[in-house]
Amino acid sequence: MASHPDHPFPLGTLTGLGVGPGDPDLITLKALKCLQKADVVAFPQGRNGQPGLAQRIIAPHLGQQLLLPLEFPYVLDQAQLSEAWDRAGDRVWQHLSQGHNVVFACEGDLSFYGTFNYLALSLERRYPAAAVDRVPGICSPMAAVSALGIPLTVQSDKLVVLPALYTVADLDTALTWADVVVLLKVGSVYSQVWQLLEQRQLLEQSWVIANATQPSQQIYRPLTRYPSLELPYFSLMVIRPGADPLPQALP
Amino acid sequence: MASHPDHPFPLGTLTGLGVGPGDPDLITLKALKCLQKADVVAFPQGRNGQPGLAQRIIAPHLGQQLLLPLEFPYVLDQAQLSEAWDRAGDRVWQHLSQGHNVVFACEGDLSFYGTFNYLALSLERRYPAAAVDRVPGICSPMAAVSALGIPLTVQSDKLVVLPALYTVADLDTALTWADVVVLLKVGSVYSQVWQLLEQRQLLEQSWVIANATQPSQQIYRPLTRYPSLELPYFSLMVIRPGADPLPQALP
Repeated sequence: MASHPDHPFPLGTLTGLGVGPGDPDLITLKALKCLQKADVVAFPQGRNGQPGLAQRIIAPHLGQQLLLPLEFPYVLDQAQLSEAWDRAGDRVWQHLSQGHNVVFACEGDLSFYGTFNYLALSLERRYPAAAVDRVPGICSPMAAVSALGIPLTVQSDKLVVLPALYTVADLDTALTWADVVVLLKVGSVYSQVWQLLEQRQLLEQSWVIANATQPSQQIYRPLTRYPSLELPYFSLMVIRPGADPLPQALP
Repeated sequence: MASHPDHPFPLGTLTGLGVGPGDPDLITLKALKCLQKADVVAFPQGRNGQPGLAQRIIAPHLGQQLLLPLEFPYVLDQAQLSEAWDRAGDRVWQHLSQGHNVVFACEGDLSFYGTFNYLALSLERRYPAAAVDRVPGICSPMAAVSALGIPLTVQSDKLVVLPALYTVADLDTALTWADVVVLLKVGSVYSQVWQLLEQRQLLEQSWVIANATQPSQQIYRPLTRYPSLELPYFSLMVIRPGADPLPQALP
């Protein structure tokens, strides 16, 4: 707990928790302990009245903590996003300034394209007295390759990760330069990517996984069979352009 | 457990466990359960008679399981490496073929440049009946940025990870193209990298962390103060060439 001259009692701490990709057992002991000790448990509010992924992951581990769903809209407009992040920061600060410890549960790892990044940056900018701590989590590419039964990277492999908003030009550069490429949230651009992989004869060295480690997990391979796919939000592709087809490649 | 016509009883399973970057509490519940249920606990043998990192991480969680240290030499010679991987596979197979379940503890995430990749590939090639399972772990870049208190990637950031054996040309390409670059095992090339970062005026957007989440953790910033550094084996650098200095960058 941090104390501050403007406040009559010690401020609470905001701790971001990466709670892993979906399987509730893929939370760390450290995150679990923080979750169980917290006064307030915040998480991104789900859509359409459904609980979000982080909320579903922590559900089996919750006790009597106060729950604080925070709204992070699914939009691209920066002004709208900034406003939402600041509003979420304000709500967290209300609790911290009362001396309550708050955890924020974030699916996957909190620092890897996580919602927590935006909450923490807004809070630190607007409330410099706020103490912020972080507990890392299992991120989706690591979970995906474990489920696929393949390595992510070996020896001197160069790895590139591209998030949802990459361009085909970026993908082309990545495929030329890197040994392993991970495309996150690949659903909206899947057909385009498939065509590029076919041209480059990389379909045999590519894998798609949706909802890794969740009960709804789906694996698609070989991709030669899937020129088009309807994929959910949490879908990613692993491509190994620099490697022979596995597992014959090594040693 | 897998069964096999050549074997009088069900074969054991080899489960690779990513046990996280160093803090024993950064193991997942799933890895902990597998570890506690295993008949045999394998891990990379330490050097100079000292326990290795994976062994130190799991030490507080061990019960009466049989311990199986496996030798993975720190050499670059591929023939010597292959021989060591095959020998390790043989030792694991001896236990699997007796019906014992074996876990292999690997520091960080097991698929991300992990020793487990080589063990599993050798075992699967030489003993196709072997059943292999994987539990992902927290990898060092995620642990590092949590300790540094910065995001790894936000929004449309392109991420590049380069392992120990990168060239300066590769680093130059990465710095030009990516928004975030992670250099693993940066110790041996630190001075060269520092000069390149100075030329590109990126020292203020770069961080070094050694032994992240271990008691011996060390953070170095701003790097303008450290033109040379003696760093241990587990040292990594995070560079954000595509971003303004944090945390003012967002939103």
